[in-house]
Amino acid sequence: MRQKRYILEEKEIPEKWYNIQADMKTKPMPLLNPQTRQPMRAEDLFPVFCEECSRQELNTTDSWIEIPEKVREMYTYYRSTPLVRAYGLEEALDTPAHIYFKNESVSPVGSHKLNSALAQAYYAKEEGLTNVTTETGAGQWGTALSYAARLFGLEAAVYQVKISYEQKPYRRSMMQVFGAQVTPSPSMSTRAGKDILTDCPTHQGSLGTAISEAVELARMTPGCKYTLGSVMSHVSLHQTIIGLEAEKQMEMAGEYPDVVVACFGGGSNFGGITFPFMRHTILEGRKTRYIAAEPASCPKLTKGKFEYDFGDEAGYTPLLPMFTLGHKFKPANIHAGGLRYHGAGVIVSQLLKDGLMEAADIRQLDSFEAGCLFAKAEGIVPAPESCHAIRATIDEALKCRESGEKKVILFNLTGHGMMDMSAYDQYLAGNLINYTI
Amino acid sequence: MRQKRYILEEKEIPEKWYNIQADMKTKPMPLLNPQTRQPMRAEDLFPVFCEECSRQELNTTDSWIEIPEKVREMYTYYRSTPLVRAYGLEEALDTPAHIYFKNESVSPVGSHKLNSALAQAYYAKEEGLTNVTTETGAGQWGTALSYAARLFGLEAAVYQVKISYEQKPYRRSMMQVFGAQVTPSPSMSTRAGKDILTDCPTHQGSLGTAISEAVELARMTPGCKYTLGSVMSHVSLHQTIIGLEAEKQMEMAGEYPDVVVACFGGGSNFGGITFPFMRHTILEGRKTRYIAAEPASCPKLTKGKFEYDFGDEAGYTPLLPMFTLGHKFKPANIHAGGLRYHGAGVIVSQLLKDGLMEAADIRQLDSFEAGCLFAKAEGIVPAPESCHAIRATIDEALKCRESGEKKVILFNLTGHGMMDMSAYDQYLAGNLINYTI
Repeated sequence: MRQKRYILEEKEIPEKWYNIQADMKTKPMPLLNPQTRQPMRAEDLFPVFCEECSRQELNTTDSWIEIPEKVREMYTYYRSTPLVRAYGLEEALDTPAHIYFKNESVSPVGSHKLNSALAQAYYAKEEGLTNVTTETGAGQWGTALSYAARLFGLEAAVYQVKISYEQKPYRRSMMQVFGAQVTPSPSMSTRAGKDILTDCPTHQGSLGTAISEAVELARMTPGCKYTLGSVMSHVSLHQTIIGLEAEKQMEMAGEYPDVVVACFGGGSNFGGITFPFMRHTILEGRKTRYIAAEPASCPKLTKGKFEYDFGDEAGYTPLLPMFTLGHKFKPANIHAGGLRYHGAGVIVSQLLKDGLMEAADIRQLDSFEAGCLFAKAEGIVPAPESCHAIRATIDEALKCRESGEKKVILFNLTGHGMMDMSAYDQYLAGNLINYTI
Repeated sequence: MRQKRYILEEKEIPEKWYNIQADMKTKPMPLLNPQTRQPMRAEDLFPVFCEECSRQELNTTDSWIEIPEKVREMYTYYRSTPLVRAYGLEEALDTPAHIYFKNESVSPVGSHKLNSALAQAYYAKEEGLTNVTTETGAGQWGTALSYAARLFGLEAAVYQVKISYEQKPYRRSMMQVFGAQVTPSPSMSTRAGKDILTDCPTHQGSLGTAISEAVELARMTPGCKYTLGSVMSHVSLHQTIIGLEAEKQMEMAGEYPDVVVACFGGGSNFGGITFPFMRHTILEGRKTRYIAAEPASCPKLTKGKFEYDFGDEAGYTPLLPMFTLGHKFKPANIHAGGLRYHGAGVIVSQLLKDGLMEAADIRQLDSFEAGCLFAKAEGIVPAPESCHAIRATIDEALKCRESGEKKVILFNLTGHGMMDMSAYDQYLAGNLINYTI
């Protein structure tokens, strides 16, 4: 009987993360202090981020960074995640391509976000902190951080975009089950929130506002720091566990990918699955294509500019050298909430500039069509974000049908859609539309 | 580093189900035709159930039944499921007991129901059928059948209890993503539904009504048969894949359970995990306790009578020899919808009568308290049904803390609660109550 899934024994789970910054021929440009426009050092990030995360953020020398034993132990609660051969999808498409996916949806919180949440919570605990804060939109990252904080005995305060807090109660409940304090943002609990509510009492919230509130709470609270679920280089670093496992698992399957695909919001799951393979492209010239599947309504990679910009709407963060639609850009209200971000992380921005990767723009209806096809073929209802990677994968597999090429395509299934079923409901009812800019 | 999870290689996944009926010293009493009160033969079940399932239902001679290769192939989409050592829970309880759980929540539909749905859909396809019908309450079984039907190219019609159809839209959406036709019951599409609606236009539906509609549709439609998600002996048979895997995995962990615990609705997940271990009790006298955790509000095992009763409210099924609260019993509106059933399958009823197993009654608030404790300790938010098994496990582990005994406890985590978060919401808000009878 043909093998469907490849799983590593616990002792085979990688013990180091891969830091692509050390191997990049052109290093990312520095983060700048918006006041002085001077490059920022790790210490400059300490007031907001954990010290170890700050150091990892700017580390351009060490290719491999040890995963702390306690984090590895917590990884074993759900890792290795399976590498799955998508026979069902191949048959549905009648393609000669071999399609594999890395199933990150099996984590207890339903997505890959936990890979970095566990690391960030661990470092916070090691630093002697008692509390962490963050923002969340639809709630995947907030759920992961709430869970990780609980495991390491930290209190978590999550600012959730108010409209999501009200419209997506399931992920809010899950954060609360894990014991987190969840506050709809904008709130009266911070200066930033009060100012916004005074100005506009019916404000529905945005990620920018929620970040401002979470950062402010971290700055004002002793023993408390801020955590972030994407964009930053240390988050991509933690996510490389995905690609490192996949590399070993592809070897078990006796194959190597010609194409690696991931959805793209800030870049952390994309970096997580592609960087370990890309090191062979950088160091050995191995020819592999890396495709970032971004929403056509938020096309920072294909239609953005490479320039220094803020990471948040309010302009509180350092200036980041990145492909951006501008930090005031208002993404359309697509259901893939995790992809509604104006910029790209500094590493992926540099890689795109250097021609090491490419991007595909996916329209909302095409993403859900792909998600439903995948669900029927493989049985897993994918998260709206993951549907973008599936669409790009299907497009590549259909090209193989035309050309007869037996390419090996690997994509990252970042999460399942069980808590996003209202989006599918609306898709099936014909109530969704495409947005483009 | 201590090992957390045990997973079988695909070639180690069992190739046969275990049929405990063949080894029982006292066989279950026969099913009776309600008109003639004569024992039913397999052929008498053919008009409603698939022929192979009907034969399995009454098979008291073959201990092992081959799992068809195509079903085994579909099992590899999510099996083996992990056997997990619950270190986090052990630490939270400060118990010397070793706690393991079989994590059936990792199936694509989030529960163990798929183990039988795949088998039933396969046999339907093999028999040349084109359609299957079923009923569902909260939707775990309906989702599993919709998925399985899709994989085998069958059309599925699911009658969902109307109040659940309206209150739990996520599982309905999931069935629709898999392409099933989902109808709120009672409906105007059947004689049974019409009669009920004529009598009471605002009827909210019940499992009994939905069964009647699904059976009627199967009887009236050429090429269509009915499927059921629990109670029947062939469903328990298919679920033994759980215990057979667990037996191998416990061996990998170098342990053998002193106590095996499962929640109890109709008995199929309970039988699934316990029967393979119980064969060693029956055949070799191995001393293991088997605990069925049923809701205190629906205590058929502890407060029911052993007698011939109907399997459905309307009295359409054969008469079954079982522990029952009476087929007109109206279970309280607890959130563990899968446990709201008046009777117990005929095999488990006989085993209870023979003293081979025991039962524990769990109150709703105690079940959710246990579920929240488990979520914080192990990271998985359990289904409300599974919370009952967790509560009974915790109670046993706490006894070990008192006595100092290092018992090995294994329980079945039937599903996750990601689509039941509104129940947790209400629990956390203090809006749930205990029901007893």
